[in-house]
Amino acid sequence: MQRPELNINSATIAQAAQRIKPFVFRTPILVNDTINELTGAKLLFKCENLQRIGAFKARGAINAVLQLSEENKERGVATHSSGNHAQALALAAKTIGIDAHIVMPENSPQIKIDGVKKLNGQIVFCKPNLESRETTLNEVIKNTGATFIPPYNHQHIIAGQGTAALEFIEDGPSLDAILAPLGGGGLLSGTALSSKYWSPSTKVYGCEPEVVDDGLRSFRSGKIEPNEPDAHTIADGLRTQLGDLTLYFIREHVHDILTVTESEIVEAMEIIWKNLKVIIEPSAAVPFAAVLKNREKFKNCSVGIILSGGNVDLAKVPFLQE
Amino acid sequence: MQRPELNINSATIAQAAQRIKPFVFRTPILVNDTINELTGAKLLFKCENLQRIGAFKARGAINAVLQLSEENKERGVATHSSGNHAQALALAAKTIGIDAHIVMPENSPQIKIDGVKKLNGQIVFCKPNLESRETTLNEVIKNTGATFIPPYNHQHIIAGQGTAALEFIEDGPSLDAILAPLGGGGLLSGTALSSKYWSPSTKVYGCEPEVVDDGLRSFRSGKIEPNEPDAHTIADGLRTQLGDLTLYFIREHVHDILTVTESEIVEAMEIIWKNLKVIIEPSAAVPFAAVLKNREKFKNCSVGIILSGGNVDLAKVPFLQE
Repeated sequence: MQRPELNINSATIAQAAQRIKPFVFRTPILVNDTINELTGAKLLFKCENLQRIGAFKARGAINAVLQLSEENKERGVATHSSGNHAQALALAAKTIGIDAHIVMPENSPQIKIDGVKKLNGQIVFCKPNLESRETTLNEVIKNTGATFIPPYNHQHIIAGQGTAALEFIEDGPSLDAILAPLGGGGLLSGTALSSKYWSPSTKVYGCEPEVVDDGLRSFRSGKIEPNEPDAHTIADGLRTQLGDLTLYFIREHVHDILTVTESEIVEAMEIIWKNLKVIIEPSAAVPFAAVLKNREKFKNCSVGIILSGGNVDLAKVPFLQE
Repeated sequence: MQRPELNINSATIAQAAQRIKPFVFRTPILVNDTINELTGAKLLFKCENLQRIGAFKARGAINAVLQLSEENKERGVATHSSGNHAQALALAAKTIGIDAHIVMPENSPQIKIDGVKKLNGQIVFCKPNLESRETTLNEVIKNTGATFIPPYNHQHIIAGQGTAALEFIEDGPSLDAILAPLGGGGLLSGTALSSKYWSPSTKVYGCEPEVVDDGLRSFRSGKIEPNEPDAHTIADGLRTQLGDLTLYFIREHVHDILTVTESEIVEAMEIIWKNLKVIIEPSAAVPFAAVLKNREKFKNCSVGIILSGGNVDLAKVPFLQE
C-alpha cells in the first residue's frame, strides 16, 4: 500500500507527548497475580480508563486542539460523536478556552449528554442516522467556522493516541506484545507506530468483537470493509469502521487482528473488575478477552494491554444484574 | 499518656518500606476534576484498593513476617480474621514459603474463604463469637507453634501500614491533610507516624462510621471504648475497637476523628466508582464521605485520602441493585 500523504513519525508522537503532558494523566500500569496465573502470561494493564474523561480519547483531542492556528481556535471546534470522543473534544476545547460543538444523536444516553454538558460542550442534536449526522455537522461548521476534529482518521489524533503506548514502553518492562481494542483504529494505529519506533520487537495486535469484525476483514482485504448496519455488540465503542489513514497504519504495522465473542467480552470484563479492582467499559475488555481465548499464543509472554476506557452505565453491566 | 514500650520510629518505617518493596505495589495516586469541583478541595487518592490482595493490609503482614526469626518462620504464622488481614497474612506467608493458619468464623462470606484458600492459607473455622475465636486460635498456636500476627495492634504491622502514607508524601504534592479510615487503628497509626516524621505540617484525620464511633470516643476518653456488640455498618472493616498501641498513637498524633452516616458512606462510594473508575469497598469510602460532609473545613486544601481497600461483594453494593 502507498503511504498516505501525512506527517506522522517518531518526532510527531514524541512532540505530542510533550504537548499534551500538562493536560493528561500519566496513567498507571497495573499487574495482578490472579490474572497472571489464570492466563499463564505476564500481563500489564495500562489504565487509560483512569485517564481524564475516563478514556484515552483525551490524548488525541488535546493534541489536535493545541495545534490549531490562533484564528481557527477563535472559531472553535466541532465533531460528531455519541461516545468518548465527544467528551474528549469538549475537555480539549475547555482546556484552552474555546467552543466545542458536538453533534450527537437525539437518542444518545443521558449519561453521555451530561458528560459533554459538564465540560461546557455545546450539543447539537441530530437524527440517529448517518445522513442527519453529516448534514447537521456541516451546518454547524458553516454557521460557526469551527474546525472539524474527527474521532480517529486524523494524523494529530493518531499521534495523540500513540502517546499511551509510548508511556507504556517507557514505564513498563520490555513487552513481547501489546494489545489494543480496534474500533475506528486511532488507538491501534498510534500504538503500532509507537511500538515500531520505540519497541520494534513488540508485536501489536488489534482486538475486536466477532460481530463487528470489519477491522479483521479490512486488514485482510486492504480496503475499508463495513459492518452490518444493525450489528450489535456490548462493546459499542468498537462498531466504527476504519478510515484510510488507520487502514494504512494497521495493515503496515499491526501483527494480527484477534476477535472475541460477546460472552467472552463479558467474562473478561468481570475478571478485570473483580481482580484489578478498576471499572472498565466493555470495549476495554476486548484485548484481555483475546488473551484468555489465545492462551497458548501468549503463554509465558510479557503482554501489555491498553484498558481503553471506563465509561459504562452501571445499570447495564451484565454481571451486576442478578 | 505514656508511650508504650516499643521500637517504632522514622527508621523502622523507612526500613519497613525497603523491606516490603519487592513484595508490594507502589500504588498510584489519582486525582479527578469532577470530585475537586464537587468538594472545593484538591483531593488526591492513594489507591491501596489496587494493592496486592486489594488492600493496604498486605504491607503490615509482609513487614511482620519478614522479621520473624528463622526458627519461627519454620513454625508458621497464625491469626484470626474474616477480613483483609486474613488474605494479607496468607499472602505474606506464601511469599516466603511458610504456613499461615487463619482462624475464620464458620459464617464468613465464601468470597473471603476462597480468597484465603487461593493463597494457600490453612483455614480453621470457629464459631462466630469472640470466645470461640480466641480458644481456636490458642489451640492452633499450641499445636503448631505458629507465631500470632495480630491484625493491627503490633509495631511491625503499624510500621508496615505507615509505608502507604510515606509513599503518599514522597510521590504527591505537599498535603494539608491526610484522611484514613479508622477501624482497629493500624493504618491510622502508621499514617499519623509517617506524617509526623516526613510531613509534620499535615493534619491527620481518622474517619469512621457514626454507628461504630468507638474510635472517636476512645480518642476523647483516652481509654479503649467498645462498640455495641450488635452494631451494624456497611463499612464492616471498621467495626473493630482500638488496641493499646493504636490508641496511644492516635491520641498523640491524630488531629481529629470525623464520623459519617451509613447513607453518606454509600453516596461517597458511588461518587468514587463513577468518577475515579476504581472499585472500593465501603470502608474505603469513609474518608471521602467525611470530606463531603465537612466541605468548609477542607475548602481549597490539598487533601490526601487513603483508599484502603477494594474487596467488596458486587452483589451487595447498594447503588448497583435497582
